[in-house]
Amino acid sequence: MINNGIKRLWADGKPVLNGWLSIANSFSAEIMAAQGYDSITIDMQHGIVGYDGAVPMLQAMRASGVTPMVRVPWLDPADIMKALDAGAYGVICPMINTRAEAEQLVSYVRYPPNGVRSFGPSRALFSAGAGYANEADDEMICLAMIETAQAFENLEDILATPGLDGVYIGPADLTLGLQGRKYAPGFDRREPEMIDAIKHILERAHKAGKRAALHNGTADYAAEAVSWGFDLVTVSNDVRLLAGAAETSVKKFRELTGSDAAKSDAAAKGGY
Amino acid sequence: MINNGIKRLWADGKPVLNGWLSIANSFSAEIMAAQGYDSITIDMQHGIVGYDGAVPMLQAMRASGVTPMVRVPWLDPADIMKALDAGAYGVICPMINTRAEAEQLVSYVRYPPNGVRSFGPSRALFSAGAGYANEADDEMICLAMIETAQAFENLEDILATPGLDGVYIGPADLTLGLQGRKYAPGFDRREPEMIDAIKHILERAHKAGKRAALHNGTADYAAEAVSWGFDLVTVSNDVRLLAGAAETSVKKFRELTGSDAAKSDAAAKGGY
Amino acid sequence: MINNGIKRLWADGKPVLNGWLSIANSFSAEIMAAQGYDSITIDMQHGIVGYDGAVPMLQAMRASGVTPMVRVPWLDPADIMKALDAGAYGVICPMINTRAEAEQLVSYVRYPPNGVRSFGPSRALFSAGAGYANEADDEMICLAMIETAQAFENLEDILATPGLDGVYIGPADLTLGLQGRKYAPGFDRREPEMIDAIKHILERAHKAGKRAALHNGTADYAAEAVSWGFDLVTVSNDVRLLAGAAETSVKKFRELTGSDAAKSDAAAKGGY
Amino acid sequence: MINNGIKRLWADGKPVLNGWLSIANSFSAEIMAAQGYDSITIDMQHGIVGYDGAVPMLQAMRASGVTPMVRVPWLDPADIMKALDAGAYGVICPMINTRAEAEQLVSYVRYPPNGVRSFGPSRALFSAGAGYANEADDEMICLAMIETAQAFENLEDILATPGLDGVYIGPADLTLGLQGRKYAPGFDRREPEMIDAIKHILERAHKAGKRAALHNGTADYAAEAVSWGFDLVTVSNDVRLLAGAAETSVKKFRELTGSDAAKSDAAAKGGY
Amino acid sequence: MINNGIKRLWADGKPVLNGWLSIANSFSAEIMAAQGYDSITIDMQHGIVGYDGAVPMLQAMRASGVTPMVRVPWLDPADIMKALDAGAYGVICPMINTRAEAEQLVSYVRYPPNGVRSFGPSRALFSAGAGYANEADDEMICLAMIETAQAFENLEDILATPGLDGVYIGPADLTLGLQGRKYAPGFDRREPEMIDAIKHILERAHKAGKRAALHNGTADYAAEAVSWGFDLVTVSNDVRLLAGAAETSVKKFRELTGSDAAKSDAAAKGGY
Amino acid sequence: MINNGIKRLWADGKPVLNGWLSIANSFSAEIMAAQGYDSITIDMQHGIVGYDGAVPMLQAMRASGVTPMVRVPWLDPADIMKALDAGAYGVICPMINTRAEAEQLVSYVRYPPNGVRSFGPSRALFSAGAGYANEADDEMICLAMIETAQAFENLEDILATPGLDGVYIGPADLTLGLQGRKYAPGFDRREPEMIDAIKHILERAHKAGKRAALHNGTADYAAEAVSWGFDLVTVSNDVRLLAGAAETSVKKFRELTGSDAAKSDAAAKGGY
Repeated sequence: MINNGIKRLWADGKPVLNGWLSIANSFSAEIMAAQGYDSITIDMQHGIVGYDGAVPMLQAMRASGVTPMVRVPWLDPADIMKALDAGAYGVICPMINTRAEAEQLVSYVRYPPNGVRSFGPSRALFSAGAGYANEADDEMICLAMIETAQAFENLEDILATPGLDGVYIGPADLTLGLQGRKYAPGFDRREPEMIDAIKHILERAHKAGKRAALHNGTADYAAEAVSWGFDLVTVSNDVRLLAGAAETSVKKFRELTGSDAAKSDAAAKGGY
Repeated sequence: MINNGIKRLWADGKPVLNGWLSIANSFSAEIMAAQGYDSITIDMQHGIVGYDGAVPMLQAMRASGVTPMVRVPWLDPADIMKALDAGAYGVICPMINTRAEAEQLVSYVRYPPNGVRSFGPSRALFSAGAGYANEADDEMICLAMIETAQAFENLEDILATPGLDGVYIGPADLTLGLQGRKYAPGFDRREPEMIDAIKHILERAHKAGKRAALHNGTADYAAEAVSWGFDLVTVSNDVRLLAGAAETSVKKFRELTGSDAAKSDAAAKGGY
Repeated sequence: MINNGIKRLWADGKPVLNGWLSIANSFSAEIMAAQGYDSITIDMQHGIVGYDGAVPMLQAMRASGVTPMVRVPWLDPADIMKALDAGAYGVICPMINTRAEAEQLVSYVRYPPNGVRSFGPSRALFSAGAGYANEADDEMICLAMIETAQAFENLEDILATPGLDGVYIGPADLTLGLQGRKYAPGFDRREPEMIDAIKHILERAHKAGKRAALHNGTADYAAEAVSWGFDLVTVSNDVRLLAGAAETSVKKFRELTGSDAAKSDAAAKGGY
Repeated sequence: MINNGIKRLWADGKPVLNGWLSIANSFSAEIMAAQGYDSITIDMQHGIVGYDGAVPMLQAMRASGVTPMVRVPWLDPADIMKALDAGAYGVICPMINTRAEAEQLVSYVRYPPNGVRSFGPSRALFSAGAGYANEADDEMICLAMIETAQAFENLEDILATPGLDGVYIGPADLTLGLQGRKYAPGFDRREPEMIDAIKHILERAHKAGKRAALHNGTADYAAEAVSWGFDLVTVSNDVRLLAGAAETSVKKFRELTGSDAAKSDAAAKGGY
Repeated sequence: MINNGIKRLWADGKPVLNGWLSIANSFSAEIMAAQGYDSITIDMQHGIVGYDGAVPMLQAMRASGVTPMVRVPWLDPADIMKALDAGAYGVICPMINTRAEAEQLVSYVRYPPNGVRSFGPSRALFSAGAGYANEADDEMICLAMIETAQAFENLEDILATPGLDGVYIGPADLTLGLQGRKYAPGFDRREPEMIDAIKHILERAHKAGKRAALHNGTADYAAEAVSWGFDLVTVSNDVRLLAGAAETSVKKFRELTGSDAAKSDAAAKGGY
Repeated sequence: MINNGIKRLWADGKPVLNGWLSIANSFSAEIMAAQGYDSITIDMQHGIVGYDGAVPMLQAMRASGVTPMVRVPWLDPADIMKALDAGAYGVICPMINTRAEAEQLVSYVRYPPNGVRSFGPSRALFSAGAGYANEADDEMICLAMIETAQAFENLEDILATPGLDGVYIGPADLTLGLQGRKYAPGFDRREPEMIDAIKHILERAHKAGKRAALHNGTADYAAEAVSWGFDLVTVSNDVRLLAGAAETSVKKFRELTGSDAAKSDAAAKGGY
């Protein structure tokens, strides 16, 4: 069986650079898979991606050698097992708040007697190569998202879950969860209490022998997170990269030509 | 009928900034349509976009007020009329090499007795508003691509075609057509003979009372083209913007962390 | 942030006319959105619509200004949050039978500390405009369907749920739930005990300061429901409108021409 | 091989009621196929339907016993043969203006030596049953659309084409073609010169031993056309039936409740 | 209402041959439906099939007269009810481990007061014919999968569930569940203890008046299972049939021509 | 640029085993690509595959290293260039009957000055690697189908076309073309005059320095064709492999159990 690139990098003591896909398209996935990420995660929670849209994305990324993961919409055995059967090498599960939920997550990812995953890796048999039945439990990664006040409180318990590979921090939700509406949600937190919280999760995870991962908006913050010790960092996503590059290009053109965006004017005239 | 924003900008003496879509997805189209372009063209020639993929893109861009166009795959009445019936406000047609071809192009875009377009604007009746039958001939734009040696020779003839709104220069093909393999194909030509050729087309077009449009790779070149007098400039496309932004982000992370792209290594080991 | 048209109409003391979509197609959605409904709900429960089919429908309705809602398949956080992230301005949730379920529903629709909705409004950021993080809790509507005997019994408790905007009556299920197989399931009930039940729910809702909504088969019944005080009424859906109009057209033709439907005859002959 | 219901009805001296599909969805197709039409045509010319969208529609109609046809986008061998291979029992081809074009059309629909159709009825082998190779030439119908001034002039020539089953009148285009912009395009013409033109085509077709078909907007006009002698009449389409039924329903509700369409008001406020 | 072919065969004392679909395509479904199976199940658990992919498959199989079922991804009311509303005549539910779960399963398949299924058979009204509301409870089949150690222990309890039609054995999971990693997962078990377990389930099911079904890899094993008394047997699936036939064809060609598979060589050279 | 595996095999003096896809699905394509074929062709002519369906198939096959080709629907520059831009390494073009047509075909596949292909290899830049602009003309294969009486007559002329890589024989059409309805259309011809015709084309092709390819129904016939000297042989396709394997499996089960296919009986009773 083809082994998991994330695990191999970790075994080599290297951090993992993870890409993120929220556009349900196999060509944009193929483009992203060619840019040098170590792994790429299809976001089936907040991404505009359903199951029928995600499968061709996994296929289109296969040739690149990038390790594919899926962020599932919720702690649901159907979604998690379908992602793995379709060829994902790991799942990131949102909103894990208790030890019991973490145990459920692990159980959905491992075959009996390690867990309750049902056997039938329909596409994975083709994409992952021979040996899946025996080796999948070792190769599939499961990361629990720590992003609520409840999870923060139960952190030690969650981290003690056998079989859990690590925790993944969603800074937007974690900020909402810990600080309420005090700060605008978003990535790359600079508030001291949020940095403390993030570093606290990181430190507890490592102490418990688990990996720690962080969602980031920029390469700068992600690099900083790596310097703190994070094992996997996600940087931005397809939506923000595309929107940001287009906005920059348009803005530059408008500045160079001194032209205004005609759009609002056009809208006022009721025309295209 | 909602009028054509491109024509309105031209009437106001303003250049048009055109976006370009090669990814067949309605969400990426909606994202691009929010970035401030005046018009956006779905590329059904070189873009990885077929008809069933293009329709939801037109729908997703409708709310933005951006003028939608389609670059059709070839001078084919079915493709051109289907694009217009689906709500495009204009077509850019590749590889127009002769006056006869330019006349065909115009005829496919106009209803009798101005042309031979068949009547049945199924979606356009919803997206373009009342009055389509009477006003569409005035609102639809047709641009002939000048991108071969033959077209360059026949330029005056092509430009004399009644009803043709203008010409659109594809610099990659034009370079291949005029210079063969002397230069690598691409946009934003800097070879003096190519700049001469581009300016020659621009100047002839304006003399003939037609609009001139240019495909560009960067905002800088496009702004320069506007300074030369171009009426519409396309800058980059969704594929290049996404790939470029992702590549820059990955590269920055690699530099900041001193990490290598793990990919080739992973591939060598036969793993994800 | 663009505000919720339903809430605005309610604030103005006006009833809301809601359309209903069960065909997973962006063009039929765009057609329906042009007919004058105040809001349109995509039915992901009984409609033949999955997530990948629903997204382009939301996009195609955006330009119309009609308020989009989704009837989710069940009380499931993933489905509810994905609908909202994709741009729905409200959810109608079937089979809410207890106060606990109603509280769960509310919690899935509101961000912490008001609820447990996870932050990541990927498409909504584009379709709903700036300010989503702060204003979404106020703009998103959640309606609990009252359609079982259990829900009828727990009505007061359900209606007392903080943050619940109102209740939505599904007359087909409610009749099954309250009367078993005594009456055929369907809308526009005329049985006195069903009218009493419907009016009872309406009256209790208003007394609790909640909105009341009713699913109807005809404009006549819906208008009557408005006269009783209903705040939102759904009239028919795309499937029934299309089937009904086609059936009427065929029947008329058959009567006028005295021709029989050839179909059964053709089937008997084993032919198309 | 399952035989062609249209031919069987014609052999029995009965007119054919044809339905028309412009929405690319298999469920709306299945709904339409249940309403009692003798045949249903997928409109790949003006309908918002491409090839990948049309195939599931053909499949969804199969169980109904309705004879499926395709209006192809243009006189193009690829489109015509692909429609037949996918299981259509006939093609309606737009814009046939000359005898040569009519001959081409016939040749694309018949196998050698009767024509040049290439052999490979991939789906038709499943949907049409055994014997396709031998019987398809007899069962497939081809109808040439007469809808331009040129076609009208060449009518006798076109009608003399061996193998052509009949002509199909598109009244919107025919009016544009014969009268220019004098009248608004549309169906159900009442202008004496258009009725004359339509009857002229009908009479010439019958004299030449060909069938005559007419596109209609209403059952009334279609019934009248049958009384004139038309062999096949199309009545409306899915788009108009759906839009018409929804509009009627909304209007009735607005009248009964005295409420205004809130939409424009909502739009003015910049809200959903 | 069209009745359930599986129930009719069972009433006639005949075993049912069930086909299995894991490829989300309407054409492969139509091909499989033409091969003589009594029923065909779309596998939405391990198959690479989501809801939006499954619907056209149900439509494409309708004309064949094969009884359509769905294996749902998990014991989830939304998935079960959506499958039935889309026209499935039965559901096979994985991982039923307790009496409580079996009762939930039954309740999701039956309308009140027999269960809690919500009423709205949108497509089934078209595909199943008149009388659905009254007859569906009798026609829909629900089969609980027995495939874990826990289910095996609770077998008697599960089998005593009123309204449950039968049990369905998944030999791969059952082997994992009962034997752990002792044997490789798969179908067509030959280990005496697994044959005993399978026969035990069969015997208990029949004693409880329930049907017993078995998933098989080959016709030989399935025929043997019928001789043991199984009421329904699944043989292989589309993926294995296609892969097996292609592999056999390639192997034969390689043997006959003495040629090697060029693929690995090509890969080594970095080429297609 | 990744080079063309077919050309490499030919350079090594080896025959090419080509697979064939007529089902528009990326998973069935991925399955087929894992079976050991040297190249696989997506049939966009007779296959039930449109452009939007073909792209994910190309992506899903990429990781396998199998050389991807497309049989285009017709000699049409748009279809040919779109197939190449999407990553095909060659096109097989049906119904090439004259030298002029063969020259057109070649011109559509080569960039100026070798041909008229327009530059914009949107997906090919990702799938084919660096150097596409310079090397594509050498790597892309174009094969002209010889399958009509006219082509047979013009064989020498066609074969003399510079830049044409070879000819591809479609035995079904060739039989129809040369023998009319004398024989049933199909592959693996055994009639002496057809074997002569096939060998004649092979011999003329080799004499002209071109490659010869043959479409076959079985590995046996294909191996025989290789022994005659054919350079590339296609064996069967996904549809026939799947249907054949399923039919064999069902038949075996019916024989072993002595059960009848219930289907026709079920159909007679009007039930599933």
